[in-house]
Amino acid sequence: MREKHPPDYEHIDDQMVKVEVNLDDTPGEWLGYVMDQLLEAGANDVFYTPIYMKKNRPGVMLQLLCSKQKLETMQDILFSETTTLGIRYYPLTVHRTERRFILVETEWGKVTVKQGIRNSSVFQSSPEYEECKAIAKQHQIPLKRVYEAVWNVLK
Amino acid sequence: MREKHPPDYEHIDDQMVKVEVNLDDTPGEWLGYVMDQLLEAGANDVFYTPIYMKKNRPGVMLQLLCSKQKLETMQDILFSETTTLGIRYYPLTVHRTERRFILVETEWGKVTVKQGIRNSSVFQSSPEYEECKAIAKQHQIPLKRVYEAVWNVLK
Amino acid sequence: MREKHPPDYEHIDDQMVKVEVNLDDTPGEWLGYVMDQLLEAGANDVFYTPIYMKKNRPGVMLQLLCSKQKLETMQDILFSETTTLGIRYYPLTVHRTERRFILVETEWGKVTVKQGIRNSSVFQSSPEYEECKAIAKQHQIPLKRVYEAVWNVLK
Amino acid sequence: MREKHPPDYEHIDDQMVKVEVNLDDTPGEWLGYVMDQLLEAGANDVFYTPIYMKKNRPGVMLQLLCSKQKLETMQDILFSETTTLGIRYYPLTVHRTERRFILVETEWGKVTVKQGIRNSSVFQSSPEYEECKAIAKQHQIPLKRVYEAVWNVLK
Amino acid sequence: MREKHPPDYEHIDDQMVKVEVNLDDTPGEWLGYVMDQLLEAGANDVFYTPIYMKKNRPGVMLQLLCSKQKLETMQDILFSETTTLGIRYYPLTVHRTERRFILVETEWGKVTVKQGIRNSSVFQSSPEYEECKAIAKQHQIPLKRVYEAVWNVLK
Amino acid sequence: MREKHPPDYEHIDDQMVKVEVNLDDTPGEWLGYVMDQLLEAGANDVFYTPIYMKKNRPGVMLQLLCSKQKLETMQDILFSETTTLGIRYYPLTVHRTERRFILVETEWGKVTVKQGIRNSSVFQSSPEYEECKAIAKQHQIPLKRVYEAVWNVLK
Repeated sequence: MREKHPPDYEHIDDQMVKVEVNLDDTPGEWLGYVMDQLLEAGANDVFYTPIYMKKNRPGVMLQLLCSKQKLETMQDILFSETTTLGIRYYPLTVHRTERRFILVETEWGKVTVKQGIRNSSVFQSSPEYEECKAIAKQHQIPLKRVYEAVWNVLK
Repeated sequence: MREKHPPDYEHIDDQMVKVEVNLDDTPGEWLGYVMDQLLEAGANDVFYTPIYMKKNRPGVMLQLLCSKQKLETMQDILFSETTTLGIRYYPLTVHRTERRFILVETEWGKVTVKQGIRNSSVFQSSPEYEECKAIAKQHQIPLKRVYEAVWNVLK
Repeated sequence: MREKHPPDYEHIDDQMVKVEVNLDDTPGEWLGYVMDQLLEAGANDVFYTPIYMKKNRPGVMLQLLCSKQKLETMQDILFSETTTLGIRYYPLTVHRTERRFILVETEWGKVTVKQGIRNSSVFQSSPEYEECKAIAKQHQIPLKRVYEAVWNVLK
Repeated sequence: MREKHPPDYEHIDDQMVKVEVNLDDTPGEWLGYVMDQLLEAGANDVFYTPIYMKKNRPGVMLQLLCSKQKLETMQDILFSETTTLGIRYYPLTVHRTERRFILVETEWGKVTVKQGIRNSSVFQSSPEYEECKAIAKQHQIPLKRVYEAVWNVLK
Repeated sequence: MREKHPPDYEHIDDQMVKVEVNLDDTPGEWLGYVMDQLLEAGANDVFYTPIYMKKNRPGVMLQLLCSKQKLETMQDILFSETTTLGIRYYPLTVHRTERRFILVETEWGKVTVKQGIRNSSVFQSSPEYEECKAIAKQHQIPLKRVYEAVWNVLK
Repeated sequence: MREKHPPDYEHIDDQMVKVEVNLDDTPGEWLGYVMDQLLEAGANDVFYTPIYMKKNRPGVMLQLLCSKQKLETMQDILFSETTTLGIRYYPLTVHRTERRFILVETEWGKVTVKQGIRNSSVFQSSPEYEECKAIAKQHQIPLKRVYEAVWNVLK
């Protein structure tokens, strides 16, 4: 196991906003697409919640987290790709722990593991999904087995 | 309090089906509408569940209960009013308890109460929503107060 | 196609609040009713989210958007019509695009279409639900067909 | 019926925060546990919402309400007991009505009832769940019957 | 590690039913309670789904799995403890893999682990929640740490 | 517009099953992956529903539709890739309308449109998502604009 690149230190970020949009008319296909567009354009996170809207309409609330400087970019994508005529937002604070990236060796090759650090000790280790998935596909083995192999090295 | 009309006796109905449709492209406005259409055409119940479909699409599963004879009518409405190209269904059995309808007197007029009976005793009493709503609107009082007034008479 | 009334211009509204209430004991019938009461009293939007509360209770979070001046009115309705003993709220900003309302002619009569405008071009066109629904009911045709007829004129 | 202890008067609390965490990798068993830990440590409320996250992942958003002084305690629990590397929060205002606790006598013993008061009148009465549950279990009767007995006394 | 008691062998059980009830008027407090009652009375599983019912009512669908012989017991509880006047059910088949229970030693004592076996190999290992929880509470350590300690022994 | 390949005629398929699995311990990352694995292996549809499980656990119900011959393949994937020790299933009938695939010409190239036919008339037209997405990405235009261009040709 060795470090991949310098860690992100623990910090509090008070320059974030949450943007919300209620959608009851945007086709599901477009919603799958817009999530990727927003993430590619720099959103820190994007997710959907099922909501119950007036007149018995099942709808979806899109929520996204981004820095204040990204707000306009996000807005442009939302107006271009969904059916909404309005978006709402409010500021919030994000507290992130120190993150470190290490490489662990498995029988199928190296896998990056993201670790969370607090008070000088590792409290969380997450193998990188895309790398585990690539191994699972290439070697035709369950994804579960790849994760377990990585965890085994860590223990 | 007096009975409104003869009760429905406890029975087991094994001539029912559940119909399901997954929807990821039907606008929410149409979904509010189709629920009413299906109920008016004789569905015993219609409801939506949020589902997570492939390619990150938030979708909706429509479920409806109807008698086997109604299946074709329901299918026609579903194909006409939604965007689906297929529906699925399976038989199920419904066990319904005896129901009796009584009228109770409140300070704002009579309200029908649906009662469930088992082993000769009332185990559930539900004031009729539409009647309570009409009173609440006409007298400008909370709906909650109307329900509570009905429950008071029943006690 | 002609305009129905003067458009609402693009603007940012920072006098809005979101109100939230967690409900685990209000009957569903009352929740359908209170949504309409809140909208009639001037809420900009009202919607429900399913939530998982302590002690295995499936509950509902009511969320509503309104201007700060409406806050007290909303609060009165929430305390009168639901079972909650507390409400919470926080300010948020709403960015709304220019909206214009046009009338389009179909074979069954005129239908209003709400349009969203950005950078002088229409990016969204939504036929008014209640008008389409009235036509569908009167002429016994699928709602879908009415929307499609409106879209055809717009193209 | 007599009062149990002095009431909490109506007040507005603007020293509250809402904390949110998106979770897509914490096992459900841990999530049931962490809710209890947070409540025991002084959270005013904790609840989960289903969310749709990127790459087709069904996830859960944990939301908790607490006073600003409790923020650090909550954060410690969240980092210890879940898999998250970041939490977010924003301030909100809570408006709570006057609450009074009374004792009512049933055939199986006393039950506490929490009452909400506005403009000098009781607008909500909620029997205490744990006491009703204890009676239901001890006397082998439906919980519903215990609640109904309490409501009967109140009417 | 040693076995706790004889394993359950892989088998197909075609004597199961799924029972469903739609609830829009049962308070959340009762729903938390009824889940426990049903499990104690022998249901194999009980769970809730959020549903959107007519007239804008957020509701809950209760689903339970039980053997055909248990159907009447479940029905009695559902009618006693909820507000429903009808339940529906349909047969289904359950395929269960071989399960074995082993005991593993941790620094805080023994923990049972449920293992799934297929084709003579272990494909799943789940520490027993209640035992891990008891250790976490007694030793004031994160539940996560207990699980990780168990997994470490297994590796 | 011209036909792409011979249509699928309207038919009723009674050789289908629905498979269900309740999951409260499978990480979200694996669930995104297993959906793709099941679809690639021949499932007709796979989707998730949020469920509320015992002991306050937010969980996920996986549902999949497949032909009876595919049942064993699906089962193998579910046991390999998730944490479940049991799956359940029941037969159902699927009614599919006639489907035809046509090609329409847009300013950016051809797009396949899936059409649903009943009583000799087209009642539904759905542009193929992957093709529209490829165009949107290549030409850096909103996905919405591609769909609208296709609909324009159809009208």
